Amino acid sequence: MPGIDKLPIEETLEDSPQTRSLLGVFEEDTAATSSYFSQLFRAMQRIYDAQNELSAATHLTSRLLKDYEKQRFPLGGDDEVMSSTLQQFAKVIDELSSCHAVLSTQLADAMMFPITQFQERDLREIVILKEVFQIASDDHDTAINRYSRLSKRKENEKVKNEVMEDVYTSRKKQHETIMHYFASLNMLQYKKKMALLEPLLGYMQAQVQKYKRENIFGLTCLLKH
Amino acid sequence: MPGIDKLPIEETLEDSPQTRSLLGVFEEDTAATSSYFSQLFRAMQRIYDAQNELSAATHLTSRLLKDYEKQRFPLGGDDEVMSSTLQQFAKVIDELSSCHAVLSTQLADAMMFPITQFQERDLREIVILKEVFQIASDDHDTAINRYSRLSKRKENEKVKNEVMEDVYTSRKKQHETIMHYFASLNMLQYKKKMALLEPLLGYMQAQVQKYKRENIFGLTCLLKH
Repeated sequence: MPGIDKLPIEETLEDSPQTRSLLGVFEEDTAATSSYFSQLFRAMQRIYDAQNELSAATHLTSRLLKDYEKQRFPLGGDDEVMSSTLQQFAKVIDELSSCHAVLSTQLADAMMFPITQFQERDLREIVILKEVFQIASDDHDTAINRYSRLSKRKENEKVKNEVMEDVYTSRKKQHETIMHYFASLNMLQYKKKMALLEPLLGYMQAQVQKYKRENIFGLTCLLKH
Repeated sequence: MPGIDKLPIEETLEDSPQTRSLLGVFEEDTAATSSYFSQLFRAMQRIYDAQNELSAATHLTSRLLKDYEKQRFPLGGDDEVMSSTLQQFAKVIDELSSCHAVLSTQLADAMMFPITQFQERDLREIVILKEVFQIASDDHDTAINRYSRLSKRKENEKVKNEVMEDVYTSRKKQHETIMHYFASLNMLQYKKKMALLEPLLGYMQAQVQKYKRENIFGLTCLLKH
């Protein structure tokens, strides 16, 4: 639906069927956004977990190579060439494992953090506001019902005033919550773009920095040979 | 034990306690080698699995970004800038995922293949030869026992000849198997060095080539900006 990117907060008091229908479109879009982000979040979580595991496994390999000398093999323990070669391998693999570890940390900060925030804060907020709005609407309906039944019978002034007061406060509450809900839905249209681009930029930035670190570290030594 | 790196095959016929004691040292070394390689194999398998998972997760992320346009979000479907930005991200991430996938294949061929071969062929061979040698030794002991019991009694020539024949063939078999076993244990001392260095070289080579590919691919575009 091109051209529509804002729910009209100024029309929340009137609460027309048109506004409600537009709200439906925004809610549908939010559901689609939520579903899309869930998939993207899971994919990024897999990248992050794999990167962590790669870092840990590389570190373990380097440690095993460093421990070769301490293995006390009954034979070949005097093989200096083998020992020093393995120490050099261990050193380069350790540097690679450091590169992986830094990349993991950067992915946590620059990729996982923003997308998790969007999932757990922004999308969660919409769900809660929808519930709050629903409760306020139900309360308002109850008050209206009580009011309409009241008008058919003869009641004393005190009860009448009470019911009128109830309609007024519940209407006010419902109006407040729908404004808040609309504002958050509008805001989400902007936030979702940022929430998509920010972790991707973080991912890219982390890859570029890893590449630069590898440039400084061991791999360049190997490339020179 | 410096200086010893060979079991004397020429002394297998004599089968002296000294030779047996030396065999014990080689068997101990083989057990230590086997245990060390099991750990290294598991660590390398973890690297390989993590690399595969990283490749798959990166590919999935790229695919999700490519699918953004097809999501049919009720709102913001006309955002050309967003779509084209995501397509560019998807392209670079896809290139990175290809780099990861090629690295996976290279790790399979150059790291996992040689270490798996050593585990499943060379070390396994020693275990089997030890069993075969044990069976031949037991058969030989049985034949000797039968022969020693035989000499105390009076038996007919046919049985005597049979038992003598049995001692001869089992002794021959035992000598053959111990020679084969010694030769394999000697060979293992050389193979284990290759088996340690080959997968490490494979790992390094794969990393260097990944680095070079990244140089050609997307990351350099990003670095230029």
